[in-house]
Amino acid sequence: MSAKIIDGKAIAENLRNTIAAEVADIAARTGAQPGLAVVLVGNDPASEVYVGSKARQTVAVGMRSFEHRLPADVPEAELLALVARLNADDAVDGILVQLPLPAHINTDRVIEAIDPAKDVDGFHPVNAGRLLIGLPTLVACTPLGSLLLLQSVHQDFSGLSAVVVGRSNIVGKPVAQLLLQHNATVTIAHSRTRDLPAVVRAADIVVAAVGRPELVRGEWIKSGATVIDVGINRLPQEPGAAKGRLVGDVAFDEAVKVAGAITPVPGGVGPMTIACLLRNTLQAFRARRFGE
Amino acid sequence: MSAKIIDGKAIAENLRNTIAAEVADIAARTGAQPGLAVVLVGNDPASEVYVGSKARQTVAVGMRSFEHRLPADVPEAELLALVARLNADDAVDGILVQLPLPAHINTDRVIEAIDPAKDVDGFHPVNAGRLLIGLPTLVACTPLGSLLLLQSVHQDFSGLSAVVVGRSNIVGKPVAQLLLQHNATVTIAHSRTRDLPAVVRAADIVVAAVGRPELVRGEWIKSGATVIDVGINRLPQEPGAAKGRLVGDVAFDEAVKVAGAITPVPGGVGPMTIACLLRNTLQAFRARRFGE
Repeated sequence: MSAKIIDGKAIAENLRNTIAAEVADIAARTGAQPGLAVVLVGNDPASEVYVGSKARQTVAVGMRSFEHRLPADVPEAELLALVARLNADDAVDGILVQLPLPAHINTDRVIEAIDPAKDVDGFHPVNAGRLLIGLPTLVACTPLGSLLLLQSVHQDFSGLSAVVVGRSNIVGKPVAQLLLQHNATVTIAHSRTRDLPAVVRAADIVVAAVGRPELVRGEWIKSGATVIDVGINRLPQEPGAAKGRLVGDVAFDEAVKVAGAITPVPGGVGPMTIACLLRNTLQAFRARRFGE
Repeated sequence: MSAKIIDGKAIAENLRNTIAAEVADIAARTGAQPGLAVVLVGNDPASEVYVGSKARQTVAVGMRSFEHRLPADVPEAELLALVARLNADDAVDGILVQLPLPAHINTDRVIEAIDPAKDVDGFHPVNAGRLLIGLPTLVACTPLGSLLLLQSVHQDFSGLSAVVVGRSNIVGKPVAQLLLQHNATVTIAHSRTRDLPAVVRAADIVVAAVGRPELVRGEWIKSGATVIDVGINRLPQEPGAAKGRLVGDVAFDEAVKVAGAITPVPGGVGPMTIACLLRNTLQAFRARRFGE
């Protein structure tokens, strides 16, 4: 038996198409257009690539993209002043400050300076709190993308047990809250968990978000379980290869033989993240401009 | 074998004594005194009793107690105006609006109107979010009290598995976050959980916060586990009795034979809640007045 492959690329494309249609419809009816501002500090190569993809996809769905680049040694006060201007700018519905920030900048302070109504990354404490409480909110993109992929397999999670491996603020904790909201029985496991294989083996849904290449083995997976692999790890370069191979937190070749459904890496959760960013921008736009 | 009884009454008294000593010390050094404002809308008898206990204990540890009573039909705007005045009042370090509120008042709106720095109930989304993210915050009193009782048994929860039965915003979800922060492997179970007895039986720590009398049976408890019973349920009155017996969410007489340690009801989590409210008021006072 081989698992169904959850095609994140196709699901993300569908989502982008739905967003584009809605943006076009709103533009035709009202003339209004959502805008997303992305702030990049410094020139970390991975961040550059990511910011570039965001800008292209933002424009592709019919939204306005505003890119702000600041030097790596920008004073924190200057970054905060930019955030304040974007908060006040009515053409900006979503604000994303690309992380990580240089060490001299207090990341928490910058995130808390963003207007929660424009916090399309869902990292502001108000939005994290609204998620915990179960109020409507902007949900962090990777957790939201993981949920949508799970929902392509399961209508509802009632009676299912889910394990989230990893307790980060940007993935593990919010994904656990989303699973709980959707009625899964949720276990959060992490580096201090005793007998992680047994904990994973008890779960109908496994979300791996720990950042350790192929940590979760095939023999840890319950037969027929749904596996969402959030990890993207680059292995050391092998002789003759241009660069190291990308792998997830799950040993895919093993797990695919046991699971009922599984996301590949790349092509699983990855493409969903930017699609969910656009979805959040549209949500923020509708809430701000039409009170929806 | 019979479990160690976790004496919430004694632990709460110790905590209040520590707080009183610190309040006296600060008063002697600086002349400043923490103040707690409690707002009661209407005259629900249980709320009256609870508010009365809070005021007495507040004064007993050397803090100032401000009680505000509003009629059950008070317009929401008037309650919000009172909250705004308390936010602005420098003598007030903590604000607690006693719940439940009458149906014509939007509870979320009232909670969100409280200055998060004075939100000693820990219900404001900013404080819930800071808890989720792991930032310093005011933690809701009953979850905090449950944690302190657990810490009277376990130094650290690394390698231990915990199950929280119940996913309410005021107990289940925050208690799960606290356990996770302290390195337990945490499972959140609830009404939709399949085979709850098996889920509970796997846990080294059980927190029952579901509001169903004696739902958790002794045979569900793993031998030697620590059991925190947050439930307080009054059973129907028996013939000849003045009122019904108080029981928790755990069948105490059964569980005490299996558990390693267990809280009684009453006298377990209950007394901790007000003690933790005073602790939060002191924390808010120190943060507001001395930036600690």
